[in-house]
Amino acid sequence: METITIKDIAALCGVGISTVSRAINNHPDINEETKAMIMQVISENNYIPNNSARNLKRTDSNTIAVLIKGITNPFFSNMIKTFERKIKEKKYSFILQHVDNRENEIDVAIQLIKEKKLKGIVFLGGHFSHSNEKLAQLKVPFVLSTIGTTQKLDRTICSSVSVDDFKESYKIVDYLCKLGHSKIAIITAPLDDESIGSLRLNGYMSALRDNGIQIKKNLIRFMKDELESYSIQNGYVVTRELLESGENFTAIYAISDTLVIGACRAIFDVGQRIPEDYSVAGFDGLDIAHYYNPSITTIRQPVEEMAEETIKILFDAISGKTSAQHKTFQGELIIGQSTGPILRRK
Amino acid sequence: METITIKDIAALCGVGISTVSRAINNHPDINEETKAMIMQVISENNYIPNNSARNLKRTDSNTIAVLIKGITNPFFSNMIKTFERKIKEKKYSFILQHVDNRENEIDVAIQLIKEKKLKGIVFLGGHFSHSNEKLAQLKVPFVLSTIGTTQKLDRTICSSVSVDDFKESYKIVDYLCKLGHSKIAIITAPLDDESIGSLRLNGYMSALRDNGIQIKKNLIRFMKDELESYSIQNGYVVTRELLESGENFTAIYAISDTLVIGACRAIFDVGQRIPEDYSVAGFDGLDIAHYYNPSITTIRQPVEEMAEETIKILFDAISGKTSAQHKTFQGELIIGQSTGPILRRK
Repeated sequence: METITIKDIAALCGVGISTVSRAINNHPDINEETKAMIMQVISENNYIPNNSARNLKRTDSNTIAVLIKGITNPFFSNMIKTFERKIKEKKYSFILQHVDNRENEIDVAIQLIKEKKLKGIVFLGGHFSHSNEKLAQLKVPFVLSTIGTTQKLDRTICSSVSVDDFKESYKIVDYLCKLGHSKIAIITAPLDDESIGSLRLNGYMSALRDNGIQIKKNLIRFMKDELESYSIQNGYVVTRELLESGENFTAIYAISDTLVIGACRAIFDVGQRIPEDYSVAGFDGLDIAHYYNPSITTIRQPVEEMAEETIKILFDAISGKTSAQHKTFQGELIIGQSTGPILRRK
Repeated sequence: METITIKDIAALCGVGISTVSRAINNHPDINEETKAMIMQVISENNYIPNNSARNLKRTDSNTIAVLIKGITNPFFSNMIKTFERKIKEKKYSFILQHVDNRENEIDVAIQLIKEKKLKGIVFLGGHFSHSNEKLAQLKVPFVLSTIGTTQKLDRTICSSVSVDDFKESYKIVDYLCKLGHSKIAIITAPLDDESIGSLRLNGYMSALRDNGIQIKKNLIRFMKDELESYSIQNGYVVTRELLESGENFTAIYAISDTLVIGACRAIFDVGQRIPEDYSVAGFDGLDIAHYYNPSITTIRQPVEEMAEETIKILFDAISGKTSAQHKTFQGELIIGQSTGPILRRK
């Protein structure tokens, strides 16, 4: 059967294409007789407007969604900009979708795939503790970007881009130990966090052990559930509580720079100095870590490169070139003004 | 003419609905004879699959888009969270679209309206200097949120939510004058900015004049075009240049808190103190303004309330309840540690 087009129908009927279109689409502005005639010709010629093809063209538009947990976290800002640039280069369009902490991102993704006919997904940040069965429900390629996973994910069904959160965390805590600190507090994610929080906590504990330092339970502090996670305010509240507990320590390591900013303010607010009274170290390498007073010692994650690699891997998968890929980037220890050798024995 | 449904066609043909659907959609899994018969019945009964209605149902899904200029600006983070919450409450879905500085947001919006069948749009941040003719091309309701406009916008065709950028800017500069400062530098947007940059600059000049202070051209400094606008780095570079120019001043007012953070770091880097050597004031009331060391004197914008009002106005317009609305919020002068009475006469 030859393919008949709307143009052919219009020619057969002796009307314009727009009139045929009006007939097909039940438009009120058409003479009933003309419409009946057109529909008859359409039927006789087995012409069927290809709805699926038309929908595809009109609404599909090659869309990639980035699902982000923690949209207020400045760590993601530069990544998002890079995602957008790279996705545009590929002539795809780009949806940024915030996922609430209480939402299941896989369900959000499945819904979006259906609604927006996505071609691919980037999961950015947050926990990621879904069963392999759940992940298998995602029928489009996806990449986990800067999501540490401690669980037994089937590495053949998903791709990932991150730093080695354990190793980098070890690196900065080891640096504090080498400065002479042995009473090092940590601010980390609650223990039910199976993601970067627990990886970075493990790095901390491992570095202490290797430096012959006993782990003190009272120096392991957790972000408050009732406050936004990784927020400056959360770091402030936890540090203030730690300072007021009378616990003896000379350094704080917080697992994000945002938390560290809050920690610093808490230290200043009780009239103590950094680094003379307390050394403070963070993680991420945000701009603000550099511009804060004092500048913050931190682990810089190469966010632009990580974002570029995320998109590269995603498009490899979309084009069917490869299956799952896993890329681990090196972090860099940036030494700021917020840490120094231990000056006093508390 | 009675409305005929796919169910009626199926009954008339003695087949299932899915078979009728396969016929309509040109599906390969259907007997050619059955298909011809169905199409004949369809034609005879003037049954026309209502594509537009079906598209609506499948892909429309009541979507609101927020078009944001300056996604890395933390000022917008809390607004976005509020937008999302309020839009979800209305059972609408939410697309966040970043607009590049070089892009025309109206064109981006028109494209999105077409692709995603938007029900409404929020324009967030940035310049907004489009002709009324251009604005009239937007066929869905929209609200300008925290976009100052100096141009002669037809206030009957668009709604807006913002603070009075002129008045609030006047307020904080007047505060600096009352502290005894008369040599006050400003960091603002380039002169071609017809938005908050020029409004806040006008507020600065007006406050100086009313305090009997002559405006010095050399103290009016502009963000660098080649750096990201309103970025910390931009504030740093401009302030560093100002400090090294040898220009005589005792206070800096930057039109955003992000710029102020950079300004502070530049002052520290040349070995000067805040506020003893320089008073520093910002605008926006970001969290970081409170947590920075020293805390920053600024104008707090009530971002959550502004975001809520934005969505309220948008949905009023979507429901056809009202035409254009314009809501101006009060800012609040927050006095931090970064400003003080003038201590020396330079």
